[in-house]
Amino acid sequence: MKPEWLSSPLKPLDEKAAAAARERQAQLTKPPGALGELEELAIALAAAQGRERPCVDSVWISIFAGDHGVVEEGISAFPQAVTAEMVKNFARGGAAICVLARTLGAHLEIVDLGTAVGLSAVPGVVHLGLGPGTANFTRAEAMSLDQCAQALEAGKGCAAKARAEGADLFIGGEMGIGNTTSAAALACALLDASPERLAGPGTGLDKAGVTHKTEVIGRALSFHRGHLDDPLEALRRLGGFEIAALTGAYLACAQSGIPILVDGFIATAAALTAERINPGTAKWFFYGHGSAEPGHASLLEALRARPLLSLGMRLGEGSGAATAVPLLRLACALHDGMATFAEAAVSEKL
Amino acid sequence: MKPEWLSSPLKPLDEKAAAAARERQAQLTKPPGALGELEELAIALAAAQGRERPCVDSVWISIFAGDHGVVEEGISAFPQAVTAEMVKNFARGGAAICVLARTLGAHLEIVDLGTAVGLSAVPGVVHLGLGPGTANFTRAEAMSLDQCAQALEAGKGCAAKARAEGADLFIGGEMGIGNTTSAAALACALLDASPERLAGPGTGLDKAGVTHKTEVIGRALSFHRGHLDDPLEALRRLGGFEIAALTGAYLACAQSGIPILVDGFIATAAALTAERINPGTAKWFFYGHGSAEPGHASLLEALRARPLLSLGMRLGEGSGAATAVPLLRLACALHDGMATFAEAAVSEKL
Repeated sequence: MKPEWLSSPLKPLDEKAAAAARERQAQLTKPPGALGELEELAIALAAAQGRERPCVDSVWISIFAGDHGVVEEGISAFPQAVTAEMVKNFARGGAAICVLARTLGAHLEIVDLGTAVGLSAVPGVVHLGLGPGTANFTRAEAMSLDQCAQALEAGKGCAAKARAEGADLFIGGEMGIGNTTSAAALACALLDASPERLAGPGTGLDKAGVTHKTEVIGRALSFHRGHLDDPLEALRRLGGFEIAALTGAYLACAQSGIPILVDGFIATAAALTAERINPGTAKWFFYGHGSAEPGHASLLEALRARPLLSLGMRLGEGSGAATAVPLLRLACALHDGMATFAEAAVSEKL
Repeated sequence: MKPEWLSSPLKPLDEKAAAAARERQAQLTKPPGALGELEELAIALAAAQGRERPCVDSVWISIFAGDHGVVEEGISAFPQAVTAEMVKNFARGGAAICVLARTLGAHLEIVDLGTAVGLSAVPGVVHLGLGPGTANFTRAEAMSLDQCAQALEAGKGCAAKARAEGADLFIGGEMGIGNTTSAAALACALLDASPERLAGPGTGLDKAGVTHKTEVIGRALSFHRGHLDDPLEALRRLGGFEIAALTGAYLACAQSGIPILVDGFIATAAALTAERINPGTAKWFFYGHGSAEPGHASLLEALRARPLLSLGMRLGEGSGAATAVPLLRLACALHDGMATFAEAAVSEKL
């Protein structure tokens, strides 16, 4: 029942472009390595984009929204209506990711996969109508086979649009009240870890709230025991529409060769799912921001990832990734625009 | 002999603007605190700029270059001629800070305070001619009283120009072969710490090189013993022209009310000197990047500072601060551009 495209070959990185970029970095007028991670970023982007001098001019951001049945267990600090309300806020340009996208000159696409409070034709939003949210995964599979396939396909479609528009970089964001619970449950399955390690305050639970959330995730893991070894099945049973869409988008980006800037906790749960479904996907990942949500560190560790920023953000929407875009751009500008020792007639190291 | 202006009153922060900005942050459509340090940045900039909605459109960067007599002790991985060569590279736009300034649309000013290889009238460079570098501070005072006063005054002049041009933010950068040795010696005096803790590889010394540098600094501290308790005198005896200019610029910015984005190790040594000369100056500091140079952490600790970025950079030139400018701009854009819960009709926390 696994959609065949998920396992299609990934685009290989261009090692020749990476070597040329590394060679260029060594000639620029600075002590070797003095630009730190900005040097490695330029080289990694060269490998992904297949050119010695990469650029991140055109940034594509897709925001996926969906509701979660598990909210009926009382695991969120905000009411479920907020998912749909925030979709409208995205469409009107008032959310954090809208401001970031405008400031960065990035294309922002909003995809409503299915909210509890139904939304009819919000201008500027793609409505996919997979259902009024997922089922409560403490006592059912979150998604049917068909819903999960459609959500993955939705992400794939966004990657295809990004590619058609010539995007230099893809960012996936999410909105869904309850989705830190879903992402934490999925992360427990992928990492074979306890909910105590991966459940956090999300949008603002207090200590008792986190304890309750941990217990809810524990019940879900017991309910689905024996079905969680396969990453796609874990995604279907514990994930959400938006998490599946992110997973599909990441896989399709890696297949078609668009570098991906991964956002925070939810997005990284999807990223690890994508890597487990089609190993090698992670070669296409860059990481924007280490979330204040405590489970993010465990996911990043599994991906051997070190995000560029650590500013205590915990908003989602792709906002952590978007905030890191200027660093990628500056890395490219330095790589392209600095003089070499020879050009500037500057003496090299003794 | 202390120039009187150094102790002139500092501009107070605008607590009313800060309170209004904090109030606004609480109303924006996000869980409280979810933008992490970007929220605190917007509030701190509001306090510094005296307006509820701050901005960082106009950025002024002054680069101060000067040579160091202590280079004859063999403490740098690069030849001393590089200071003058890099001044020309700054003027021609090939250095990292030039690329960053162009990309950010920042104003870049280049000030040559005195290099060992004399420079005559490089277009685009202000030449101040304080001498062919400082004296070797292992056996003399690095600067005369007059040289130190002139270097401080040079920084003050840059701050005045930045203010006249309506700068929203000031960045000071430096270039000077040997200046991590000078900054480390000065930091030892200010922090009463051992050279072992504060000497690092600079532009690329190996382990033996760092050991030698440590020994050189130790000799300098012995030579000047009994004269290092006064921060201004420590600056004059162990600092450099560019470090004194940075110190003067920071003091003058805090006096006239321009927020300062502090760069790495050298700049932070100047920042701590300024704070010690006129306590309260540090209220005007923001910190861009935590340097790979190991002594930076000790200086930051003394200033109770946590830089925005930690990307392993160790270049100087103001490059770490410049790299952080987009974060300040995004913080301001989010603060200004996001919808409030009321405007967007989004439900607040349960």
